[in-house]
Amino acid sequence: MFMTIEPVPHVVIVGAGFGGLMAAKALAHTPVRITLIDRRNHHLFQPLLYQVATAGLAPAQIAAPIRAVFRHQKNATVLLGEVTSVDLDRQEIVAEHKREPFDYLVIATGAHHSYFGRDDWAPFAPGLKSLEDAIEIRRRILLAFEFAETEEDPAERHRLMTFVVVGAGPTGVEMAGAIAEIARRTLRDEFRNFDPGEARVVLADAGSRVLPSFPEALSRDAQRRLEKLGVEVHLNAAATACSDEGVVIGQTEIAARTVIWAAGVAASPAARWLGADADRAGRVKVGPDLSVAGHANVFVIGDTASASDAQGRPLPGLAPVAKQQGAHVARVIAARVARRPVPKPFVYTSFGNLATIGRKAAVIDFGRLRLTGFAAWLLWCVAHIFFLIGFRNRITVALDWSWAYLNFSHGSRLIIGSTHWPPAQGTPAATVRPMPPRHTVSS
Amino acid sequence: MFMTIEPVPHVVIVGAGFGGLMAAKALAHTPVRITLIDRRNHHLFQPLLYQVATAGLAPAQIAAPIRAVFRHQKNATVLLGEVTSVDLDRQEIVAEHKREPFDYLVIATGAHHSYFGRDDWAPFAPGLKSLEDAIEIRRRILLAFEFAETEEDPAERHRLMTFVVVGAGPTGVEMAGAIAEIARRTLRDEFRNFDPGEARVVLADAGSRVLPSFPEALSRDAQRRLEKLGVEVHLNAAATACSDEGVVIGQTEIAARTVIWAAGVAASPAARWLGADADRAGRVKVGPDLSVAGHANVFVIGDTASASDAQGRPLPGLAPVAKQQGAHVARVIAARVARRPVPKPFVYTSFGNLATIGRKAAVIDFGRLRLTGFAAWLLWCVAHIFFLIGFRNRITVALDWSWAYLNFSHGSRLIIGSTHWPPAQGTPAATVRPMPPRHTVSS
Repeated sequence: MFMTIEPVPHVVIVGAGFGGLMAAKALAHTPVRITLIDRRNHHLFQPLLYQVATAGLAPAQIAAPIRAVFRHQKNATVLLGEVTSVDLDRQEIVAEHKREPFDYLVIATGAHHSYFGRDDWAPFAPGLKSLEDAIEIRRRILLAFEFAETEEDPAERHRLMTFVVVGAGPTGVEMAGAIAEIARRTLRDEFRNFDPGEARVVLADAGSRVLPSFPEALSRDAQRRLEKLGVEVHLNAAATACSDEGVVIGQTEIAARTVIWAAGVAASPAARWLGADADRAGRVKVGPDLSVAGHANVFVIGDTASASDAQGRPLPGLAPVAKQQGAHVARVIAARVARRPVPKPFVYTSFGNLATIGRKAAVIDFGRLRLTGFAAWLLWCVAHIFFLIGFRNRITVALDWSWAYLNFSHGSRLIIGSTHWPPAQGTPAATVRPMPPRHTVSS
Repeated sequence: MFMTIEPVPHVVIVGAGFGGLMAAKALAHTPVRITLIDRRNHHLFQPLLYQVATAGLAPAQIAAPIRAVFRHQKNATVLLGEVTSVDLDRQEIVAEHKREPFDYLVIATGAHHSYFGRDDWAPFAPGLKSLEDAIEIRRRILLAFEFAETEEDPAERHRLMTFVVVGAGPTGVEMAGAIAEIARRTLRDEFRNFDPGEARVVLADAGSRVLPSFPEALSRDAQRRLEKLGVEVHLNAAATACSDEGVVIGQTEIAARTVIWAAGVAASPAARWLGADADRAGRVKVGPDLSVAGHANVFVIGDTASASDAQGRPLPGLAPVAKQQGAHVARVIAARVARRPVPKPFVYTSFGNLATIGRKAAVIDFGRLRLTGFAAWLLWCVAHIFFLIGFRNRITVALDWSWAYLNFSHGSRLIIGSTHWPPAQGTPAATVRPMPPRHTVSS
């Protein structure tokens, strides 16, 4: 008697952020073969990216090589590559001339910043999505102080010492608070020719309050704390112009050499790859099991998906959402593979909304329970450590971050790369070295 | 009665490596004003740079912002800037259109790698002198493994898995040993489609033994340990060709995508700035008090100086030499300022020569006493921690590095920047963003 042995189903997961990583880990004990593909070699703990950008933590402390995370998970293969399209007819993903067939596909490719149609502002107002972004923002902030030390023209020094953050969601609030703190505390004793404490930090938003996704009382609390840290908060002030001289927000012109963009988010091209329905921000509309209409084996999760809660409201682009969706998709796939009934539709369980203001305060919205101040900040720290997905042993990370906090992490205040303004557009960067063209195998 | 108050003498120190940093710190209690200028914002602990290049430590662990080192030293001002010439007539240094007058000048600008006239090899065989160098080498090494995971052509995979280090001095020996170790140990479980342990690591030198500045018995011991780690040692094999396909060393052609240059050193342009006598490597010849002939107030120390020991032999380009010279120059300046007799001529006290092979062995030459193996490696660690110049609290660094060692420092294995071969020469790098031209004040 002959037995047909079915091959193990192949699950391809695109993106190793919170959503993709969680899905891959949650399938560790399911009889599937997993290929996890990301265009970078590391998983990034994004909630703390602003710390790298403001020279508070080093990149190594908030990123882990994806391979290290999966070294012991034998059903997972990690690949470095950039997916450029999905061939739904042939059931394959396409990445840089290589094709990978799948039985199940999970797209978790996240979001990037949007300049609301003004992409020409990008060179003057970098956003914060990747480690490279954070290192570049850090470089500009630290260079501004360095240049101020030798600048003799008071007007230019004032421009160098003015920092504008556009967008008062959690990222913008956290960035602005952190910049105010390094200026007024960390760098205080390190300059002789001027006082870094006199830096001007501006936080601007088109809306009427900071942290618009939080309850009003917490928005007011956060604004108060920001102002106590010396941040100027400008509300009802959309950015209307941006150049190397500064910004215009609302009616106000602000001369500044450093502008940081924390204002808009747009989804990855996943909707285009799938030819699927998308919302206004480009996020793929998914069903109750997070799959795409007409393709029950194709799932989209995280910031690049548009899913709704029980009341039909769109879910926010938060890390816990992506993480829970990743776990849910893994349960759905496992049920299908085992020919068990499919789980109930996805329901997001909110553990609250958190944002820090400086090193000693936070605001936390748990719905009925709200917390602010130092207690909130401690809880924020604990929550983030708890939230790690096998990033490293949680104990080691807890010790690592505590260490960095106590030490003021001097090692993070490095300017790596050019100590000059980058070359004008079109000029090759001085440090690029050509390498051999990669030998490509056509498929 | 009128008193003329003489202004405090101004000591300008160019370069914040071991020599410059030591000189500045040693003048903390001398009634002088110090300006320490470096073209980077951080002091680099160079003996461990190879660890960053081989993804064993993170940049933040071996570099400190210069300002942080001097935050409490009130007579020291730190400036970021690149010195381009010295005006001995006007007694000023020139840095990017700004001039700084000095009463005493200490030049400690170090060395860079030399390709013995074949600068066209530089793009294919990066050297290791700065953090940027180390991060680039790390990127290439890690990318080679990433590409091997998806490479279907066995010949290309073999090329990707072949690493050649040219130059078997301490830097080359340490690099080769570390690459062999990450391939055979750290990365072992992280790839599914090939075995990183089969990487081929080649160490080549034109001379007849590794570590030529060590006694012969230690050279043999080091070579034995390298071979035990799986490093192929090719001696009497000078590099005669280098391209993106590999190298030719001696008569042997080796196909390799990653070549690292650890073979030649050339001094900074200091000799040219001063119009001073220099040796064949461009190092400035200095007198017994480390000053330049005809300019008793201009000192040159460290790798960019050519000083001799009691037997007239040139001193090696080692960190302890620079450190002791920095301390000596500070004593000379302090004596002159106080109108005391000048100290005796500089004498270098050697504490031995050290090199590690992998994570558990080292060779140490103390002259009469020699040590090899694990005990030597422990002593090497202790010596390096002891050797820190107020880098950070020695205890914190000791704990930090022990931590990294025990944890295999996964966070250091990040590929930051392009995950593609860099663009061909002449093409702008994709990630460069233009910034406003710096407002320059003409002097």
